[in-house]
Amino acid sequence: MNEKSPDRITPRAEDYSRWYLDVIRQANLAEAAEVVKGCMVIKPHGYAIWEKIQRALDDMFKATGHQNAYFPLLIPESFITKEAEHVEGFSPELAVVTHAGGKKLEENYVIRPTSETIIGHFFSRWIESYRDLPMLINQWANVMRWELRTRMFLRTSEFLWQEGHTAHASHEEAREEVLRMLGIYSKFAEEWMAMPIIRGVKTQTEKFAGALESYCIEAMMQDGKALQAGTSHDLGQNFGKAFDVRFQTAEGKMEYVWQTSWGVSTRLIGGLIMTHSDDNGLVLPPKLAPIHIAIVPILKAGSEAIVVEAGESVKKELSDRGLSVVFDTRDYKPGFKYFEWEQKGVPLRIEIGPKDVEKGSVAVKGRLADKKEFWERAGLGERVVKWLDNFQQELFETARERRKDNTVRIDTWDEFKSVFADQDSKFAYCHWDGTAETEAKIKEETRVTVRCIPENAEEEDGACVFSGKPSKRRVLFAKAY
Amino acid sequence: MNEKSPDRITPRAEDYSRWYLDVIRQANLAEAAEVVKGCMVIKPHGYAIWEKIQRALDDMFKATGHQNAYFPLLIPESFITKEAEHVEGFSPELAVVTHAGGKKLEENYVIRPTSETIIGHFFSRWIESYRDLPMLINQWANVMRWELRTRMFLRTSEFLWQEGHTAHASHEEAREEVLRMLGIYSKFAEEWMAMPIIRGVKTQTEKFAGALESYCIEAMMQDGKALQAGTSHDLGQNFGKAFDVRFQTAEGKMEYVWQTSWGVSTRLIGGLIMTHSDDNGLVLPPKLAPIHIAIVPILKAGSEAIVVEAGESVKKELSDRGLSVVFDTRDYKPGFKYFEWEQKGVPLRIEIGPKDVEKGSVAVKGRLADKKEFWERAGLGERVVKWLDNFQQELFETARERRKDNTVRIDTWDEFKSVFADQDSKFAYCHWDGTAETEAKIKEETRVTVRCIPENAEEEDGACVFSGKPSKRRVLFAKAY
Repeated sequence: MNEKSPDRITPRAEDYSRWYLDVIRQANLAEAAEVVKGCMVIKPHGYAIWEKIQRALDDMFKATGHQNAYFPLLIPESFITKEAEHVEGFSPELAVVTHAGGKKLEENYVIRPTSETIIGHFFSRWIESYRDLPMLINQWANVMRWELRTRMFLRTSEFLWQEGHTAHASHEEAREEVLRMLGIYSKFAEEWMAMPIIRGVKTQTEKFAGALESYCIEAMMQDGKALQAGTSHDLGQNFGKAFDVRFQTAEGKMEYVWQTSWGVSTRLIGGLIMTHSDDNGLVLPPKLAPIHIAIVPILKAGSEAIVVEAGESVKKELSDRGLSVVFDTRDYKPGFKYFEWEQKGVPLRIEIGPKDVEKGSVAVKGRLADKKEFWERAGLGERVVKWLDNFQQELFETARERRKDNTVRIDTWDEFKSVFADQDSKFAYCHWDGTAETEAKIKEETRVTVRCIPENAEEEDGACVFSGKPSKRRVLFAKAY
Repeated sequence: MNEKSPDRITPRAEDYSRWYLDVIRQANLAEAAEVVKGCMVIKPHGYAIWEKIQRALDDMFKATGHQNAYFPLLIPESFITKEAEHVEGFSPELAVVTHAGGKKLEENYVIRPTSETIIGHFFSRWIESYRDLPMLINQWANVMRWELRTRMFLRTSEFLWQEGHTAHASHEEAREEVLRMLGIYSKFAEEWMAMPIIRGVKTQTEKFAGALESYCIEAMMQDGKALQAGTSHDLGQNFGKAFDVRFQTAEGKMEYVWQTSWGVSTRLIGGLIMTHSDDNGLVLPPKLAPIHIAIVPILKAGSEAIVVEAGESVKKELSDRGLSVVFDTRDYKPGFKYFEWEQKGVPLRIEIGPKDVEKGSVAVKGRLADKKEFWERAGLGERVVKWLDNFQQELFETARERRKDNTVRIDTWDEFKSVFADQDSKFAYCHWDGTAETEAKIKEETRVTVRCIPENAEEEDGACVFSGKPSKRRVLFAKAY
């Protein structure tokens, strides 16, 4: 909020981690809470992006028949222990409420790290017959996982997310749901975030604690590392059995339901930053930009009135087309304003001075353009809309090209180690023998993990890049955030 | 979710508290969590109402220059103690996190009961100069106050709300903000909720812990009790001093900021229920109804196709006008469907059978109408829109009439005791001597409290209804939820 003394943004080539934090600070997206370990404050510009994300996803969830609901923040500690893998996965990360209302509690509560258990409990109360299925619920909420190493947006102790929870009469239907929601996440990532993704399934080591299988979308960040950007879990009957969620079939038999869960979080904002931004600051795809256009007037004594009038008229024309426009008449120099809107990721800047008004044109600069262009004032609205559509598409293409340039097929362990030396990462398609043991050894030696077994992986006979054992298909390796 | 075996709704005259819970259960709005003390699950139909409330208020907040942000759920325990009245007011209700990540914490955290303290901390980091003011922030969040006696929506340990937090350069500006937001709450209550309110200021006993003054809106429920439906607090410099939030004035002096906070919560849903609903279930004003119209086809062998076609065409015409429509083709009897949509508070029901199609009409029943009407199919969309506008207005008028009929001026203690005997309550305008002592004695003897000192209270010489001491104006007394 104090943007009066902007600091330098560290270039990516110098220090990628510092660049990331600098972009966040200079765009005023968030700051570390410090007084609350591992937590952050999401500031207005960051929260406005989250609201755009929420609106787009929520519309898609509702269009596919899901309804929002809200479940308690606190979960009885005993609930977490009911599903064996779940407790093992989440126990180390729990925040525990032991006292309330001035007294020690009889049973502790944990702050939800995710809500499968408490929702499982309510599903068991609500579901009686096949007529109650499918049950398609989503929740927008905060969750808490006590993390040792945190990084703003990507991994914080508290974060905001949505968690879908559904129950179905058959495994087949549940699997359709898992893939339907993975499809929605993929569409959102590529068409809204302009962030190309690889769809696939997690290894048993990397899957959600308590799932049969976890599907995911993985995106490449500018440094070649992978970001898990969304997950959709086939929970099988694991939670159904743990919480006794049974239904009477049409034939009168009692069966456990088949469940799914799926979620994306504020970490997507970290993905946005690391996919598109540059050394000048944040870059946002128009579909998620809280402000599409900043109009900066060049005010000179004597011509102020006509310039302000021209600016207002441009603002009105663009606002009428549903765009979000700032007409920045603050008492700062134009250069200061250019700098600020650039750092905040506004896709398009329009400058209007007395000469522009005279000529019936405006000066225009795209967020990634090298220099200004001059556009005719007449027909400006239509041209801006087209430009924004194009910019959205260009960001996606650029990210896809970058991924293509940084994707390799590796067949030897030496090459693997060389590609992943030090901080380096790429997307590497390699053969893997399918064992958790090999996965663990590779991770230990190189910090590289199997990001997913890609959905469309072709069958191909090969030898594991680490163990040399036979393998039927290549999987996606990368370092991950 | 299992609505297959609807139970009876207890009539209001028989047991008002039970009626309230029955309406919630039958409309499928929420249920007590039980396994989490004092908490509730907000089910899809209840949450959809909350989403409507959020959208309307959020638009008004943004239109008045406020921005949303998100602050940590957990607050260091020491923060709460920094403002003397604040700690006294909230300490008994805190839920405390003592362990996290498998270890005992060095300092405990409390789950936010409200966020003045943590936001005060960040304001002190963000605000340096008068140029940073006013700072106008709102947060949509969950909060926790460990309550002994809970009642669904009205008072639960966890609830959802919005909390506005603003900082200003002068007390005058802060007071303008307090009244601006009170005005928005009033407008929302009356124009969206169709719930007439009295605006006023709280007594020092009833004000927010840490405020100079608390403004409120008070609504009358059907049983004559009052519901505090929204509050807007003038915090003065109390939190500014506690968290060292200072700014440099234009003249170069350092001063503490003047702050406000204001909030409404999911308790508004309780207010909606107790303002409009009847012995047949929920009644909703159209502006907050998740479903405006339920179309129920009367399906008979041989004419199903034309009835479904007619129903689809009505649905399309109404949806195109921005209304939310359910075309209920489920395999249940019409009577069951009528009952269900009635209990869920859908304002208008449309029935279409083969004869209606033949005649070019539809059967229509308003939620509070005694019997069906037949409306021409031609021009239906326009008529429905008008009907809904009217219904919204009628609900407001009915509630205002009820309040008028149940509002009294009382000048003697005997009359006071008689009006407020047992469970009874009205809105009573009485003289009060202005002392906390008298307020406490009245409350102890009758459970009646001063709801507010109304904004427009006329000066009038009188004697306190309890102590007989002199008083300059009447204040509003009632029992409260």
